Amino acid sequence: MRYTKYKKTLDYSYTLGAYPTINMLENYPDSGIVIFISDSASEKKSDLVKALAASKGIRVEEHANKIVSKLREKDSISIVGVFKKFEKNLEDNANHIVLVNPSNLGNLGTIMRSAISFSYRNIAIISPAVDVYNPSLVRSSMGAIFNLKFKYYENIESYLSEFKSREIYTFMLNSATYLDEMSIKEVGKHSLIFGNESSGLDETYNNIGKPLKIRQTDIEDSLNLSIAASIAMYSFYKG
Amino acid sequence: MRYTKYKKTLDYSYTLGAYPTINMLENYPDSGIVIFISDSASEKKSDLVKALAASKGIRVEEHANKIVSKLREKDSISIVGVFKKFEKNLEDNANHIVLVNPSNLGNLGTIMRSAISFSYRNIAIISPAVDVYNPSLVRSSMGAIFNLKFKYYENIESYLSEFKSREIYTFMLNSATYLDEMSIKEVGKHSLIFGNESSGLDETYNNIGKPLKIRQTDIEDSLNLSIAASIAMYSFYKG
Repeated sequence: MRYTKYKKTLDYSYTLGAYPTINMLENYPDSGIVIFISDSASEKKSDLVKALAASKGIRVEEHANKIVSKLREKDSISIVGVFKKFEKNLEDNANHIVLVNPSNLGNLGTIMRSAISFSYRNIAIISPAVDVYNPSLVRSSMGAIFNLKFKYYENIESYLSEFKSREIYTFMLNSATYLDEMSIKEVGKHSLIFGNESSGLDETYNNIGKPLKIRQTDIEDSLNLSIAASIAMYSFYKG
Repeated sequence: MRYTKYKKTLDYSYTLGAYPTINMLENYPDSGIVIFISDSASEKKSDLVKALAASKGIRVEEHANKIVSKLREKDSISIVGVFKKFEKNLEDNANHIVLVNPSNLGNLGTIMRSAISFSYRNIAIISPAVDVYNPSLVRSSMGAIFNLKFKYYENIESYLSEFKSREIYTFMLNSATYLDEMSIKEVGKHSLIFGNESSGLDETYNNIGKPLKIRQTDIEDSLNLSIAASIAMYSFYKG
């Protein structure tokens, strides 16, 4: 097998660095294919990764200096994991985050980390959208992908037809209701829906669920998507 | 005057693109030196920037294809402003954000945008810290720098000795009090202090103000700094 620089069309991707590699081995070893360790890896990290990989039955190649140099994005990276791309069906009995056409890798990574912090473990992504398997995103999100269930949907209708009995909240700048006016304690199983970074959610979303907005000063610029989504998740989580 | 790729040691910096350039011309024209417009700029943007610059007495160079190509970071940029670096004294009668040793440009830009959204217009930055004048940050924050008062301090003591009579809240993972347990309505003029992305605030900060933490699940990973700071600002803003 000859591994090349990541492309979206590949059916595998990479964990660049010890932290996301360990996260993959601990939380979703079924996706693991092989781990490459270069000679510049510290003994401590190398031993930890080797022991974990052995316990999960994943092959390790040491002294893999050439392939690690080829796949990494930064010279400081000395451990690279290869994993098979996967999706996991979302749980019907859980709360969901739904991201409609997210276009920024950094935002998606930050939202994934916040989702874990605020107990949202199921994320639906409506296409077209950024590639959740992109190694930069896997790395910037600290491997959050392995701790989440996520699934791509062609459109919002196919998501909604799969998950029918739940409360739906849409985040829209023109909503009449502020998030902080909601009585969160009375909210049941739900999905929080967020739009694209520049275009938000279009007007058709007014009919899909209850529109909410985040209280802020009256300025032209809107909040960054990862900030808006995280404030919403935090508000629902703390109750 | 010969302008070169941005370096931290220069006493001027650049607004890359129409949006931050317009923001500079509208909100802090005193810092403006010259505006370069290349032939690839749309007529609409070009006319808007020219009219604004004229009204503020800032010189414009059109057909500046060569210098724009040299200074920009992306081929899509066709307008570049040059501005003199500035600091503005913080207002004693306003609430402040204090960032201790922020090390990530993207986080700082996102925090600046959130600060404006949640009515914090004064930001103290404790050195060592990232360079707030970096053109990438000016651009990613949509020119927020021109809407804020910010100042670098050598250490936290010099900040505290300048601003003595205010409530101080420090965000620390080991705090005994949750942010959502605070009675925000009773809070007066205050400063919110946040630590570095990896190391947070050290224990000495326990004695500086009231430590708070953000409610989240019990996981290893902490929230991204821009997320934590934005949730805190939002919570104080909505009251």
